[in-house]
Amino acid sequence: MAGVSHPGKQPTVKEVAQHAGVSPMTVSRTLAGGANVRPDLQERVLAAVRELGYHRNENARSLRPGQASGLIGVAITNLGNPYYGNFALGVEEAVAETGRRIVLGNTGGDPARERQLVADFMGRQVEGLVLVPSGGPSDHLRPERLGDVPLVLASRRIYGLDVDVVLLDDVGGAYRGTRALLDAGHTRIGYLGNVSSAFTGARRYEGYMRALDERGIEVDPDLVFREHHDSGSASDATRRLLDLERPPTAIFSANNRNSVGALHEIGRRLRGGASAAELPALVSFDDFELAELMPVPVTVVDHDPRELGREAARLLLSRLRIGDRTQVPARVVEMPVRLAPPPSD
Amino acid sequence: MAGVSHPGKQPTVKEVAQHAGVSPMTVSRTLAGGANVRPDLQERVLAAVRELGYHRNENARSLRPGQASGLIGVAITNLGNPYYGNFALGVEEAVAETGRRIVLGNTGGDPARERQLVADFMGRQVEGLVLVPSGGPSDHLRPERLGDVPLVLASRRIYGLDVDVVLLDDVGGAYRGTRALLDAGHTRIGYLGNVSSAFTGARRYEGYMRALDERGIEVDPDLVFREHHDSGSASDATRRLLDLERPPTAIFSANNRNSVGALHEIGRRLRGGASAAELPALVSFDDFELAELMPVPVTVVDHDPRELGREAARLLLSRLRIGDRTQVPARVVEMPVRLAPPPSD
Repeated sequence: MAGVSHPGKQPTVKEVAQHAGVSPMTVSRTLAGGANVRPDLQERVLAAVRELGYHRNENARSLRPGQASGLIGVAITNLGNPYYGNFALGVEEAVAETGRRIVLGNTGGDPARERQLVADFMGRQVEGLVLVPSGGPSDHLRPERLGDVPLVLASRRIYGLDVDVVLLDDVGGAYRGTRALLDAGHTRIGYLGNVSSAFTGARRYEGYMRALDERGIEVDPDLVFREHHDSGSASDATRRLLDLERPPTAIFSANNRNSVGALHEIGRRLRGGASAAELPALVSFDDFELAELMPVPVTVVDHDPRELGREAARLLLSRLRIGDRTQVPARVVEMPVRLAPPPSD
Repeated sequence: MAGVSHPGKQPTVKEVAQHAGVSPMTVSRTLAGGANVRPDLQERVLAAVRELGYHRNENARSLRPGQASGLIGVAITNLGNPYYGNFALGVEEAVAETGRRIVLGNTGGDPARERQLVADFMGRQVEGLVLVPSGGPSDHLRPERLGDVPLVLASRRIYGLDVDVVLLDDVGGAYRGTRALLDAGHTRIGYLGNVSSAFTGARRYEGYMRALDERGIEVDPDLVFREHHDSGSASDATRRLLDLERPPTAIFSANNRNSVGALHEIGRRLRGGASAAELPALVSFDDFELAELMPVPVTVVDHDPRELGREAARLLLSRLRIGDRTQVPARVVEMPVRLAPPPSD
């Protein structure tokens, strides 16, 4: 498993260049895609490569002491959600600027899958890890497991794990979103959100409670649904909210999956003959496309997932530049959010 | 560049096991994440790993003849678009079932970036490539460049390149979408789509033309906008369409970026006092969320990007299972699309 056999007969770039009658630079350029190399020279290089059986091997670098694999392991919970697609894009862009690539895995929010992915990434000698934690046990992320491979957590913190974290201003965003509904005169405000164990879910619920508390309004447990992270179950929760004897006049939704679910149910009621005026206003943490065209008023707690990804990558890259990686204390970066009517262009 | 130094002192799993006083299986399980290994045994293994300086190295496998890197290179045009996020998710899921991982890169539709990414992936000795082509020159994808690394193209074909391809039924979907508008009585139907060089753009435009031609309606060049692949420019095109002396009564939009752009402009006109009845109906190639809540009638040409990703991976994996990879002729798989009112739940 650990043994590495020496290929032995692998020719060097210099040998390929001699064989082709070109400079080593021309060989390198041809193998890097052929930009600025005349087609006939490219052909000669490729012929020499074939004859000598040469193959450039980036991964081989990882076996030389002091050389790095150039791979960053990225594990996220749901690549199908545009929020995380943009997050991964931001990480990819920022590490690509340093010539590195991302190995990407989807955990589906499953702690066992996350554990497996991290072990796999470590086995591939990634230079660093960016992880959106699933919220399960975290012993596989302890420093003695990861050695000198830096880890950056995104979206969610793991208490007791002293690593760099990029977060959104969850509490502040939820607080301001809920307060905007209170300012508009709503006093019965439903809450749709993630499972309570999830870090973001707990923080956003805290913001909701703070805003209510400030106005002396007690949280009505009938109005709180905290177990939903897909649009289907959020739709069911909205149905139960709207079927209450005293339904809420507004809903604070803690993420875009819940917002979409709530709007599906609102759409069903409109098609069933309800008027928009009897349906709840919505504040959504997370922007979503076409929010400005919804039949009920929607305000979003907006932020930039791509920038969150870039920031996670920046923290990781700065660790890779530091000789002693434990010299700088772990940083927690909170990215700003913005309360906004949906963009109208 | 090609030289590989032999680490030499790298201990084996067996030596780690002896040092820790456990079985080699316990070492392997601990390094794979620790599932089913007692915490105290894990601690002993990790202590031995630290003392001996052992590190599992998956990439090292790629240096042994006949062993593979376990990496699949995936290059897509826009990870921020939920269509491609779901596509990448499908590829990742299917290759993960065989213990492989994806190295993911975003080309932004830039041919130079694509060329660079493919060269980088080859340097990392990926076992296979999945590519959504950017539409530029394709000499970097020729067989003599890729050697025995199989390539699967997704969404777009490159003529003259004899490799496996997964496509959507672009022509059929656009034809049926346009015909649905004709059946509803529309005769002036705007077209919003991609740059004409893009393969999907050409195919979807062909479907639009066929449906009009069948009814003896000539294409009015004033109604055709084919240069738009982001929602901002599609929004501008929609404004120009609606400002025509004889504006279209319906729009066929060739992808979800164009649909979102068209709807932004429609929303602006509604806020400016237009009534929904004077605004165009829309058929959108590509589903998008909350389509059923739009203020104008929207029909979608629906399909499953995640399944498209899974199919691309299946084609690639089948090539990896075939000894002589050129034995089986290149396959073109067209995935079905479905004309549907937006899902109402």
